[in-house]
Amino acid sequence: MDKKAFNRPIDICRAKIADPFWGVAQETVRREVIPYLWEALNDRIPNAPPSFCVHNFRAAARMLERSKTQEFVWPSYSFKGFRALPQDPDSPDPDKHYGFAFQDSDFFKWVEAASYALANHPDRELESKLEEAVDIVCAAQHESGYLNTYYIVNGIDGAFTYLKDNHELYCLGHLIESAIALYQSTGKDKLLKTACRYAAFVLQRFGPEEGKCRGYPGHEELELALAKLYEATGKREYLELGRFFIDQRGTPPNFFLLEDRQRAEKNGEHYPPDDVSRYAYYQAHKPVREQTEAVGHAVRAAYLYAGMADISRLTLDENLFAACGRLWDDIVQKKLYITGGIGSTAVGETFSFPYDLPNDTAYSETCAAIALAIFARRMLQICPKSEYADVMELALYNTVLAGMALDGKSFFYVNPLEVVPQACGADARLEHVKPIRQKWFGCACCPPNIARTVSSIAAYAFTENENTLFVHLYIGSQITKRVGNKELQLNLESEFPWRGSATVRIKAASPVRCTLAFRVPGWCKNYTVTLPDGIERFEQNGYVYVVGTWKDGDQIKLDFPMEIHMRTANPHVREDYGLAAITRGPLCYCMEQADNSKNLHCYRLDAERVGDAIEKSVEIGGRHMVLLELPGYKQEITPGGSLYINYTKPQEKPVGLKLIPYFAWANRGEGEMRVWLRV
Amino acid sequence: MDKKAFNRPIDICRAKIADPFWGVAQETVRREVIPYLWEALNDRIPNAPPSFCVHNFRAAARMLERSKTQEFVWPSYSFKGFRALPQDPDSPDPDKHYGFAFQDSDFFKWVEAASYALANHPDRELESKLEEAVDIVCAAQHESGYLNTYYIVNGIDGAFTYLKDNHELYCLGHLIESAIALYQSTGKDKLLKTACRYAAFVLQRFGPEEGKCRGYPGHEELELALAKLYEATGKREYLELGRFFIDQRGTPPNFFLLEDRQRAEKNGEHYPPDDVSRYAYYQAHKPVREQTEAVGHAVRAAYLYAGMADISRLTLDENLFAACGRLWDDIVQKKLYITGGIGSTAVGETFSFPYDLPNDTAYSETCAAIALAIFARRMLQICPKSEYADVMELALYNTVLAGMALDGKSFFYVNPLEVVPQACGADARLEHVKPIRQKWFGCACCPPNIARTVSSIAAYAFTENENTLFVHLYIGSQITKRVGNKELQLNLESEFPWRGSATVRIKAASPVRCTLAFRVPGWCKNYTVTLPDGIERFEQNGYVYVVGTWKDGDQIKLDFPMEIHMRTANPHVREDYGLAAITRGPLCYCMEQADNSKNLHCYRLDAERVGDAIEKSVEIGGRHMVLLELPGYKQEITPGGSLYINYTKPQEKPVGLKLIPYFAWANRGEGEMRVWLRV
Repeated sequence: MDKKAFNRPIDICRAKIADPFWGVAQETVRREVIPYLWEALNDRIPNAPPSFCVHNFRAAARMLERSKTQEFVWPSYSFKGFRALPQDPDSPDPDKHYGFAFQDSDFFKWVEAASYALANHPDRELESKLEEAVDIVCAAQHESGYLNTYYIVNGIDGAFTYLKDNHELYCLGHLIESAIALYQSTGKDKLLKTACRYAAFVLQRFGPEEGKCRGYPGHEELELALAKLYEATGKREYLELGRFFIDQRGTPPNFFLLEDRQRAEKNGEHYPPDDVSRYAYYQAHKPVREQTEAVGHAVRAAYLYAGMADISRLTLDENLFAACGRLWDDIVQKKLYITGGIGSTAVGETFSFPYDLPNDTAYSETCAAIALAIFARRMLQICPKSEYADVMELALYNTVLAGMALDGKSFFYVNPLEVVPQACGADARLEHVKPIRQKWFGCACCPPNIARTVSSIAAYAFTENENTLFVHLYIGSQITKRVGNKELQLNLESEFPWRGSATVRIKAASPVRCTLAFRVPGWCKNYTVTLPDGIERFEQNGYVYVVGTWKDGDQIKLDFPMEIHMRTANPHVREDYGLAAITRGPLCYCMEQADNSKNLHCYRLDAERVGDAIEKSVEIGGRHMVLLELPGYKQEITPGGSLYINYTKPQEKPVGLKLIPYFAWANRGEGEMRVWLRV
Repeated sequence: MDKKAFNRPIDICRAKIADPFWGVAQETVRREVIPYLWEALNDRIPNAPPSFCVHNFRAAARMLERSKTQEFVWPSYSFKGFRALPQDPDSPDPDKHYGFAFQDSDFFKWVEAASYALANHPDRELESKLEEAVDIVCAAQHESGYLNTYYIVNGIDGAFTYLKDNHELYCLGHLIESAIALYQSTGKDKLLKTACRYAAFVLQRFGPEEGKCRGYPGHEELELALAKLYEATGKREYLELGRFFIDQRGTPPNFFLLEDRQRAEKNGEHYPPDDVSRYAYYQAHKPVREQTEAVGHAVRAAYLYAGMADISRLTLDENLFAACGRLWDDIVQKKLYITGGIGSTAVGETFSFPYDLPNDTAYSETCAAIALAIFARRMLQICPKSEYADVMELALYNTVLAGMALDGKSFFYVNPLEVVPQACGADARLEHVKPIRQKWFGCACCPPNIARTVSSIAAYAFTENENTLFVHLYIGSQITKRVGNKELQLNLESEFPWRGSATVRIKAASPVRCTLAFRVPGWCKNYTVTLPDGIERFEQNGYVYVVGTWKDGDQIKLDFPMEIHMRTANPHVREDYGLAAITRGPLCYCMEQADNSKNLHCYRLDAERVGDAIEKSVEIGGRHMVLLELPGYKQEITPGGSLYINYTKPQEKPVGLKLIPYFAWANRGEGEMRVWLRV
């Protein structure tokens, strides 16, 4: 751990995205997604399952206004199954809470996304929606500071009695993140005050001191939010609480076991057995420092690891950082899809066992890829190694973007690497896999999460410390770097992800000495950097550091040639054995029925002739793309025929295999798709 | 439909198995399985989940003795989930019913198996157990004739109120089959009378007449049992009832929909929607004559189709037989594993969609393979075509036998075609797949089903009509064929399944004119049949018919050379694309870790050199086997390494791939197994 290398994400107000690729994605989010989500959160989308988010805040506010407290009735809650819905969908009871217990978090993620969007682009209408949103949230805060609509409506006495599954602390995490985003984007602190009041309430209740609760979040996320709140406010108690949650997690006596026992006793059920291994789902089966394998619910896991990294950085805890490194390695070496997705099984949305990366039944939740990018950036903040940025890039350019249609009007929760639409409809094992994006979800965590991630992409692309600006992702932007009392403006132009060239033009009122660190992508072997005279360079951990005194008009030219790579998986990955995937630059490619034909499994790449691939410029969903056409073969198959026959070599015809970027799949109707191809 | 070709299974008392292969299996069943199951049904196996079968009959008998009738309480029954268990497993309440609602059927299947075993081999101890079993069953019969322990114990008023899921008619089917088996094996008719009394009760309640119930079994099997009862007793009303169930099934207004609605009304729940497609699980989504695709629960389906075939034969119903043929084709052309298994998905134990035959998540229930063999024999009884016998052979020699350990002490319910034990333990999607056989199951349908099938193998191998004896399977036996008032004894000796040669020696007090029909297996191209002088031959539908007057001492020599075949699946089967399986004679082969090493997916067959395969004689579990060693390659893989790298051709070493018969897998501890191999 080298404190001098520590860095922080750039304030997104000082990094204005002006990029043909991400700029369009941000505009889509601002113009389509954010207004659409607002309607969805207000239950005004016809034919979509209602969210009840706003409804729940209003119900909580009504409850508080009337100072009416009901006796708390323990909900008959079984996770995943539980989602309270009104008997008559058209007339929900204004005094009841509907949806999941964690419904509030969707609303907070929207506030966060909208705040970033506002920082990128003035928008009067959005500003007023945000004001309304803040009022809705703040009106639901209990006088104690507590703010969770599920318990306020169902009985506040139950608050914090079921940490394992009821997500209150998780929701607080998202409240904090949204409040900070809003404050940093607009300077408005009403929501931040509300968040701090709730955090103060939690501080009184949780901690190592006698009489306080020694529990921790069932769904992690508050840890990283508390680190952020500490960095935003400077108040050390937030950091201490985050550290307490991290250190307490999984230590004996296991808090979730105690909670489950109390619950069982209350319900007259049998005590759960002593075995704490089942809390691996929550990463609470052992103390986090002793954990070496990424296990359990993938989103929970990656949020926890990000929080651990933050706490290790802010408390200079080498031991904790080492645990983060081990967990990182376990993911990257054994549990990561080539599309940057994690969490391979739908069963509990969890990591599976090492090298288990099925393509058709893949879960690879959009939120899990986001969580991986979040974890990666935390690792980068501690130690700027291109390995972290490579994975972050992979997740962001592929699975995260695939989570949203090119027009921003529909979303994937699950991101398979192989789809046969007929199978999705007919095979209950693929129930979670959808061949086309959906308008909305009963559990709608992913759409607002994509929105907040895309809107704050600058914070992933650029980090800084006192003297250095790090460029992790080549996204066209105007960046202002402060060095002492001087300012340096960098205009970054980039052709990513289609071509690997980028140019930085310097604007400076007076010469400024500082370091710029440019990531050398792992997929690039021979790159060139052209510098003005007098600037020095060295390479370290996969970054080219260029150091010197920058003058107005200076230019840096970077070129990272994008070759087509045919990739193969570790032979331990049974599902990919004998197959290959095509990547080019940051993008993973896939075959779609739309460019080829049905029965994609009957196509085969010619491994010897990948060099003959042709790059074609095409439009998909109104966007420019590079399509790849690779030489290969196809066995034509006809309907019917015997089920089994004596082996004969398949009769194949030469054919060009057309591949498009994975993020752009399923934008032209329903059809087959495949990332891993036969060789 | 050619009535002259109709044939019936040989009375197993007149076909004594004397075969090195099936004889050992029968002895294993008689000496190990049947006594073991008896202990299991009596809940006397330590560490195995209790069956409660005998317990339930005793509880029902107690209930009847005390003439105590409780008010019927509708059980909170949700199928699959429901299995009543005592609070304290060591002291079940003697007045309560435990286990599944269909628990009685396991007991009946044991009676059936034990009866066949007794026919094959005198066994005083088994005889007395059978007497005890019959007394236990008969004591539980209500004075009305009704006999189902679930409803007698829980309230007889509920009888026949939930046909869709509560299996009463299914249990009656198994009672009838067991009673006929016992009667035909021993001449004892106490159980048959009981079965007929229950059948008479059902006759009063069900039928097209005004005031009778127009329902039908939720789990089919009674249809074929009623056909059998008609053939055993000559009473046409049983046949009529069977035909009623067949004809009524799936006709509007859908009976199960009506039942579900009544049930919902009673429980104050929402009415289920009108859509009857969900009754496809029960093959009740449309009239059976209109069904063209094998759908739903695989065991239910194949039992239904067998019953349809029986009814079509007994009523000369061409139209119904045509429906059977369509359903047969759908299975055989699109839904059959190369191991003879059917029902590819664990979700509802059902058929999946066409060509969906996954290997690792395969369900392929043992009972479903048995049901397929039952269906195949029914088709053979109508039309002796070798195609039906090929599939029957495939099911019996591979999946059915795989269902039982070679020592008869453990069983598979699920029969995958690819197993990695680590994955079974770690992957909840494979929860149903066990890498080693189990001692017993909560739902223990398979072990007694294997026992009854193996014990009555002669009835699958040999069928007859007035003038013809059909040999479908080459199983060493002494068979007595009656022709008019004469008798012909055939001593069949066979080296199947290891070598394709068989000899028939005739014993006859005086010359007898009759036809023998020998199946030419589909896997055999060039066969030879050597006949005594004066015997004529012709081939039809894959059978060699040999016709003439047989004298004492006549010999027939048959030779069906067994070659090693490398088989490939229809290219629509995505999961087998690019792979091949090895068969030899009736046996499907597989690779096991025990003969090779771990990571079976890294082996590859040399398609050009299958002709160089070596056959080796080995012993597995004390039994002689033919092991095959085929030339191929293996990529050695070492732990660790990057998850994705640029493609390089795998470094493979030449290696012999050792394969054993699929039925013998998992008899040497836990290890990987694979049927489909890379080429």
